[in-house]
Order: sequence, then structure tokens, then C-alpha cells
Amino acid sequence: MHFPGLLPPSFDSGSVWLVGAGPGDPGLLTLHAAYALSQADVVVHDALIPAEILSLTHAPLELAGKRAGGMRTPQLRINNRLIQLARQNLRVVRLKGGDPLIFGRGGEEALALAAAGIPFRIVPGISAGIGGTAAAGIPLTHRQLARSVAFATGHDFSGELADVDWHALSRGSEVLIFYMSQRRIGQIVQRLIEAGRDPQDQIALVSNATRLDQDIRIATLASAEAAVRDIPQGAATLIIVGPVLALRPLLADWQQTTPMTIEPMPIPARLKG
Amino acid sequence: MHFPGLLPPSFDSGSVWLVGAGPGDPGLLTLHAAYALSQADVVVHDALIPAEILSLTHAPLELAGKRAGGMRTPQLRINNRLIQLARQNLRVVRLKGGDPLIFGRGGEEALALAAAGIPFRIVPGISAGIGGTAAAGIPLTHRQLARSVAFATGHDFSGELADVDWHALSRGSEVLIFYMSQRRIGQIVQRLIEAGRDPQDQIALVSNATRLDQDIRIATLASAEAAVRDIPQGAATLIIVGPVLALRPLLADWQQTTPMTIEPMPIPARLKG
Repeated sequence: MHFPGLLPPSFDSGSVWLVGAGPGDPGLLTLHAAYALSQADVVVHDALIPAEILSLTHAPLELAGKRAGGMRTPQLRINNRLIQLARQNLRVVRLKGGDPLIFGRGGEEALALAAAGIPFRIVPGISAGIGGTAAAGIPLTHRQLARSVAFATGHDFSGELADVDWHALSRGSEVLIFYMSQRRIGQIVQRLIEAGRDPQDQIALVSNATRLDQDIRIATLASAEAAVRDIPQGAATLIIVGPVLALRPLLADWQQTTPMTIEPMPIPARLKG
Repeated sequence: MHFPGLLPPSFDSGSVWLVGAGPGDPGLLTLHAAYALSQADVVVHDALIPAEILSLTHAPLELAGKRAGGMRTPQLRINNRLIQLARQNLRVVRLKGGDPLIFGRGGEEALALAAAGIPFRIVPGISAGIGGTAAAGIPLTHRQLARSVAFATGHDFSGELADVDWHALSRGSEVLIFYMSQRRIGQIVQRLIEAGRDPQDQIALVSNATRLDQDIRIATLASAEAAVRDIPQGAATLIIVGPVLALRPLLADWQQTTPMTIEPMPIPARLKG
């Protein structure tokens, strides 16, 4: 595809762009993201980025968090690696699934770069909670059904159920979207029922959102724990509750969701090494 | 800009794509959105879409909601106009600011199209609450500061303060983003203080997010109503509260936010008529 007339901002050597790749469909990359991939000297990417999207760069790829080292946490290793690459005067893309700042820990990387005096740019991406629900035919803030939608994580730092005010969370926003929470789904639906939601309320489980293998399961709060069991382990799954789920069957027959695809690259071995 | 190898999904005659244009920076358009604009036979757009983004299409432009007619509401008129254009076998782009389903009323248009048997696609966009906060250096879900972020509207159908459970909304999510709510800001901050937030807590007011004329004001809950007064009337303003605002000064010196620009088109009079 060719878009004449676009003048992107300068991607300077020695700077880092923290880029959201969106939920999976390459067509949900932003122009900034596609430009950054085309210009990068190195791309440090998360594990869940589709190979198709990685094929948009000719730069060496580095899987984040997989390097040996004596640091305390993988996140610290990633921060330091970004600093190290930028100090080699490279144009560094840090490619993250969804949006860098919605449960993407882009804030931690940005703080580390700022503390090291390295210029950076945050390139927002389509968060899975927005792109995945759209592809599933769920209008998040449909008028008269939802005046607020909350994006939440169901677990804390250690992986345990998050110590949030579940009653307030459930009552404060008609629509709730939980990221990376399928392992805690039994506890989450229990808290929502205790907060007053009907056990027969619908819940949607969307895995591999916006990809060709997108998987949408509709259950009730009461049956959600059983429904989540046969979702493949590695899949990123969104959990959605709220009255807007009722609209989905009205849209499904006429909604098109085919993702963009990318022709195979001439050097298919590039991902190795 | 040229991106070889991308194979977009078919944009069929007689179908409507509900496209999010993002908050303003043309670089935040998705590849799907840029492709749709390049292929459209007609573009029905909101008033706040920047002229630069509109210059990416050669199709006739139609400003939504400005047609005469006997329908009860502008939204009904827009729904019917989209159906009418699709039945003329055109490829119709309905271009909306931000994301079509986050306070964009795309759900209503999708329902109308489905009821009329017209194929449609929802192309998610970068919502102002995500793109605008990123450009303002506010990491929405920074770990250990926010486990939930709520996107809310402060007003109801009639423009009055929304009749939501303000106590629950404030306590359920550490970070709150209000859309199109500057006229109700006095009442909103009062409800947040009643729910337990400190009057000295920071509040950010972001207008014209991600554009060259982006305006960021930091106030406290106590001073917010005064701070909003001299924001230009027409500007779309986001209101953000939460502990993550404290990170902004740590990022500001090193963050780059220059938007993408677009060269002037050869036929500058196209917007007229």
C-alpha cells in the first residue's frame, strides 16, 4: 500500500520508540508504527507479536526478556537493553502487543529511558480491549447501556487476585474488561456476583482477538469458569461483562472482520538467529 | 510512505466501514483506516476530523448531521444517510474521531446498518483517552499505581450530570478519564471529593490531543473548575484524574510528540461544496 504525501516525524538515531502493535490484525497498526518498523535499526519485541507484523521490518529482531543476565527482573533487563541499544546510536523500536500504556508496562520503560537521558516516543496502539471487542461485535459504550467502561487487571504483581474494591469496580462501570485474567476467572465472577451482578449475566471470553483464529465464547457469570477451561494455555484472553453484550447477536450476520494479511517476505529465514 | 506486501481485506461496494480516525495526529490512523480512505467512494465525517486527515481521500466529503430532513434526531439522519449511500452501491466510509465505539455512537450506526441488511466493518481507532494521555506523558495503568482505568462520560443523554454511582466509579478505578465533560467539571470534581479523593489531587485537562496545538493544563480537583474556563469553547477536552499524573514531569523532558503531517493536496478547493 502506498500513501503519498505523508511526512512522518523524525525517528532519530539514539532514540527509542515504544510502539503498540495492536491486538494482532496487521491492519490495526498505526501509520506511526508501520513507519517505525520500516526505519528501525533493531526491534525488541514481545513474545505474542504475530510473525506477520514482524515481517514489516528488515531490522534484526530481539525477543524481549529472554536474555541472560544478573538483573533482578526481566523488566529491568529489558529497560537496560533498550538503553544499551540507544547508546549504540541505533533507532530502537520496542514493539509491544496492544497499547504500550494499557497493561503494557510501557510507563516503566519510558521512565527508565527518561532517567537515562534517552529521547523516546510513545506510539499508542489499539488495545486488545478496544480492538478485540470491536471485532467481537461488542459496542463498549452503547448509549443508554453504558456510561463508563473500566479496563482492569484481575491479578496483582504476584499473580494473585487483585486486592481492589470489587464492589466499587463492579458498580462504578457498567462494562468491565479484564486483561490477562483467565486464571483468576472463578474468583473474579464470584466477586462480581457478590457485588450484585446476576449469575445469569453474559460474559464474553475473546482469545486471539482480531486474528484469523479469533475465538469468542459467550457464557454466563455462573458458567464462566467452566467455559475458560478449554481455551489454549498460551492464548491472550479478554474477559468482558456488561449489558452491551446483548447487542452482539444483532450485529453478527452483517459484520466483516477479515484481518489484513502480509505477503511472505523474500528472506523467510530472517526470524532465526 | 510505501508499505509493500500488505494485502487489505476487500472493501466491497454497497458496504460501510465505520472508521476511527484517532485523536488528531494523522500518524495515529490505522492501516485499515488509511486504506479505507484511499478506496472510498464517499466519506461521511464528523465535524472535528482535521482537514489533513480528510485530505487522504479523493472521495466526496459529507459532514455528518448537517443535512435537512424530518427525522427526529441527527443520529437517525446519519444512520439513514449511510444506508441510502450504501444502497447506491457505494463504498462508504463513516469517519469518526477517536474510536467508533468509545463514546462514538458507532454501535448505533452498526445496529442500523445490520437491521437494513448492509455489510459493515468496524475499524477501531486510537481513542483520545489513550492517544491523548500518551502524548501528555501519562502512563494510564502504571504498575503499582493503577490496576484499573475507567473511561466515562460525565453527562447523560440530555447534557445533565450523569446519574452514575459516583462513589463507586471513583473507588473502583484509580484512574478516571472523562470525555466531553468540561461543562460539568465543577459537579464532577465535587462528586469525586465526596467519594474520598483529596481536593489537592492532580487533574489534567488535555485539549486538542496529539495535535500541534495540544494544550495540557494541570490543576487540582479544587481548582479544576477555574482552570477549565479559558479553554476555547470548540476544543475537545479530556479530563484525567489519578495517581499516574505524578509521573508526567519525570517523562516530559525526553518525550517526543511531533505529529505526522501531510503535504498539501493538489486540489485545495475539494473541501468546498
